[in-house]
Amino acid sequence: MSSFSVPPPKCLQKPLAVPHRYMFGPGPSNVPSRILMAGINPVIGHMHPEIFEIMNDIKSGIQYMFQTQNNMTLAVSGTGHTAMECAIFNTVEPGDSVLSAVNGIWGERAADMAERIGRALSKYRPVVLFLAHGESSTGVLHPLDGIGQLCHKYGCLLLVDSVASIGGTPLFMDQQGIDILYTGSQKVLNAPPGTAPISFSERACQKVFNRRTKPVSFFLDLSWLANYWGCDGKPSRVYHHTGPVTAFYSLRESLAVLAEEGLEKSCERHEKVAEYFHAGLESMGLKLFVKEKKARLPTVTTIVAPHGYDWKEITTYIMKTHNLEISGGLGPSVGLVLRVGLMGCNSTKDNVDMVLEALKDALKHCHKSKV
Amino acid sequence: MSSFSVPPPKCLQKPLAVPHRYMFGPGPSNVPSRILMAGINPVIGHMHPEIFEIMNDIKSGIQYMFQTQNNMTLAVSGTGHTAMECAIFNTVEPGDSVLSAVNGIWGERAADMAERIGRALSKYRPVVLFLAHGESSTGVLHPLDGIGQLCHKYGCLLLVDSVASIGGTPLFMDQQGIDILYTGSQKVLNAPPGTAPISFSERACQKVFNRRTKPVSFFLDLSWLANYWGCDGKPSRVYHHTGPVTAFYSLRESLAVLAEEGLEKSCERHEKVAEYFHAGLESMGLKLFVKEKKARLPTVTTIVAPHGYDWKEITTYIMKTHNLEISGGLGPSVGLVLRVGLMGCNSTKDNVDMVLEALKDALKHCHKSKV
Repeated sequence: MSSFSVPPPKCLQKPLAVPHRYMFGPGPSNVPSRILMAGINPVIGHMHPEIFEIMNDIKSGIQYMFQTQNNMTLAVSGTGHTAMECAIFNTVEPGDSVLSAVNGIWGERAADMAERIGRALSKYRPVVLFLAHGESSTGVLHPLDGIGQLCHKYGCLLLVDSVASIGGTPLFMDQQGIDILYTGSQKVLNAPPGTAPISFSERACQKVFNRRTKPVSFFLDLSWLANYWGCDGKPSRVYHHTGPVTAFYSLRESLAVLAEEGLEKSCERHEKVAEYFHAGLESMGLKLFVKEKKARLPTVTTIVAPHGYDWKEITTYIMKTHNLEISGGLGPSVGLVLRVGLMGCNSTKDNVDMVLEALKDALKHCHKSKV
Repeated sequence: MSSFSVPPPKCLQKPLAVPHRYMFGPGPSNVPSRILMAGINPVIGHMHPEIFEIMNDIKSGIQYMFQTQNNMTLAVSGTGHTAMECAIFNTVEPGDSVLSAVNGIWGERAADMAERIGRALSKYRPVVLFLAHGESSTGVLHPLDGIGQLCHKYGCLLLVDSVASIGGTPLFMDQQGIDILYTGSQKVLNAPPGTAPISFSERACQKVFNRRTKPVSFFLDLSWLANYWGCDGKPSRVYHHTGPVTAFYSLRESLAVLAEEGLEKSCERHEKVAEYFHAGLESMGLKLFVKEKKARLPTVTTIVAPHGYDWKEITTYIMKTHNLEISGGLGPSVGLVLRVGLMGCNSTKDNVDMVLEALKDALKHCHKSKV
């Protein structure tokens, strides 16, 4: 006879305590109270008409943020990584090649994924070209103009990761010929992590809905997701999975905030604040990792790790003394850079001043080797 | 030159409005204020030490709920479906067979997934046997005793879906020899949908970590998840994906609530309330869909669709008049049953009385055909 033998854990008797912190790393960014509070609206059914209306609002908000008319626009119930897998699982079939522009860890990961679904990368005849618009590991902003047209000339789809860039720098899904575009909720949108906007062009849908095989994932199968999000023109929606409704509330609110300010103004603000920040960094003798001005992300700034210092000591000092997160490198940029993200509501000159003060203070107090 | 051409959508100018509703369908269930409020703690980094501590608390809470000592215990950043895919993606390789006990839509879906990763179901030599402990589509509670031992005799892993059952009826992962167990956050736990507890036995880990091929999903690759959740014994955690931290806060709180009441008491409460409910249904002349008392889920009750009525009219009437969700069937039980879920904080005699009143009222006011 079985019996209860594992006792209730003592650690759960302690009340949950979470500190407030300035989230100026590459993400997640701070979530304003308005967006957090949206998430405490009551949980109702994932198939209730009110939820479908909220999902429709989200769809419109994403179409606006992405500058697209694509009907096949929705939010995946997961993070940016889930959206990335959704894009690849649905478009790539056994026998298909994927070309990935490796410019940082994001590119590398897409390559890793493509390998995982059995594809060796080939430089020729890929069905998908993957590109990260904003490389948050290196702070590089990739130009997109012309790439979509080039892809289409060779019958290839253009898949763009805009997790770190969109809302902070102009991107035009339709005009730039992007076939699949995704982002996360926790960067410029300032919503909690857990939902990921994604959109598919007509051309991408042609490929997805004419597959010979089913995608490996049922959870991310676009034909199911399209129905749940009311994108397939069918009169009724069928139960697929339990949508994270409270995360939808917050996502909707974050899109409303973006729509209120306006995308163009948001981009201008991010660019101005970034210029102000970059000038401030240079005036205190720090170097920007991305030399070319046009290639700098306005959302995530990479600073060359100050010579003679241990970067880890700097970030730790700033966290401890200023309650402020900035981070080191990621993947190819580990040890080479400090990364500062000022995204969405965090992108203000006051916050720049705060980061500059913290950096000055850190350089004064952290150990400098006598090289 | 590209330009902003898609205007901000008008629908986002309307403030978000979500009604309160009694969520007495098969899930999600109502989320008490304490658990919702936990979710408005500030977003901090998914790799901050405070988050790792919260994740450790969650791990302990899941070990308690699952009655397991398994070190490989964590929460997937997704819904129950994501956990299901996590289980199957990590254990099943090309060439492996999966046996699925099809007793309702859940079994059918696992079968569908197994087929998706290239496996035809075979009755012989499966590496995994899938079983839903609580079949919320039919209201059936499956006995588990002895099945684990039988599986292990034939070198097979036992995979159990406890989304609709755990916390409401006894389940003992270790003692019952379950190798992989998962559930969702939005049923008995009364947390918002979006996280899914899962645990792997030592035997399951042997299979997972001796694969010849990588799992198809990077996002659900257990070797990465194990590291993120501190289950792999490595001294440091590497960035995998941005954990949905606010969903973690709510999940931790829901596990704390369960630990406070105690698992045994929670199960007893669900069973008593279910018995009271079932007696009430029978006394008003309704029939239970599951004849055998022992095979009835205490969390989700299936009622034979009242003869001569349109079930859809009943659920619609009750929603409209009583602001209360009960649902029709799902998959094999569509048209045959009404389903009522009383899970977690919803499992009270007062709520039973409310449902019985609503049903009586509906049978009085809905159209009865003259058959």
